[in-house]
Amino acid sequence: MAENDNIFLKITRGEIPADIVYQDERCIAFRDINPQAPVHILVIPREALESLNDASQSDEGLLGHLLRVVSKVANKVGIAEKGYRVVINTGQDGGQTVSHLHLHLLGGRDMTWPPG
Amino acid sequence: MAENDNIFLKITRGEIPADIVYQDERCIAFRDINPQAPVHILVIPREALESLNDASQSDEGLLGHLLRVVSKVANKVGIAEKGYRVVINTGQDGGQTVSHLHLHLLGGRDMTWPPG
Repeated sequence: MAENDNIFLKITRGEIPADIVYQDERCIAFRDINPQAPVHILVIPREALESLNDASQSDEGLLGHLLRVVSKVANKVGIAEKGYRVVINTGQDGGQTVSHLHLHLLGGRDMTWPPG
Repeated sequence: MAENDNIFLKITRGEIPADIVYQDERCIAFRDINPQAPVHILVIPREALESLNDASQSDEGLLGHLLRVVSKVANKVGIAEKGYRVVINTGQDGGQTVSHLHLHLLGGRDMTWPPG
C-alpha cells in the first residue's frame, strides 16, 4: 500500500493545493506542475493504491473509471477531438516518481514516437 | 464504431498471425511488430471499440480489465518488478495509428521523459 503521507494523497485530502480540473467521489484530476505538453493533467484515485502492480481484480471498476475520467477531462479541456496520449508509469524502469497510481493525460501538441 | 476489417480485429479473429503472449474471452495481447523497447506488447479488446473517446460507462469494466491484463502480462514476461510504461494513444495528436483501442506495454529498458 502507498504511504499515507505521499504528495498525491495530500492533494486528495486538500492538504496541498493543486490546480484541480475535475473531481468525483473516487478520483481527482489536476494539472502537472512540470507539464510536458500544453495540456498535462494527472488523474489519481482517492484511495491508496501504489501502482498498477498492486491493483487486484476488485480494482478493475476503479481502473476503468480512471480511464473514462481521463477521456472526460480531455473533452472538458478541449483536446478530445484532436487527440491525446495517456501514460501510466510503473516502477523504476517505467519512470514512476510518486508511489501512488497516477494517469498522465497529455495533449495540445503532436505527441511523438517512441513514447520516451 | 471501428470498421470490421481493421488489422487488430483481424488478429483477434485469427485471420492475421501475431506473436500472442496472452488471451482470454475479452482481450488479446501480442508483440508489436515495430517494437520501441525490448518488451513492447499490445493489449486490445476483442470487441470493436475505436478509442478511449468511444468508451461509455458500460465499458468501464472492460477498460479496467485491459489495464489489469497489462500488469499480468508484465509479470508474465518478467518486467513487473523493474517497471514498465503503459501508453494509450487517442486520435491524431495522440499518435493513434489503428482505429481500434490498444494499450501499449513497454519495458525492458529505462523509459525516458517526456513520453514522446
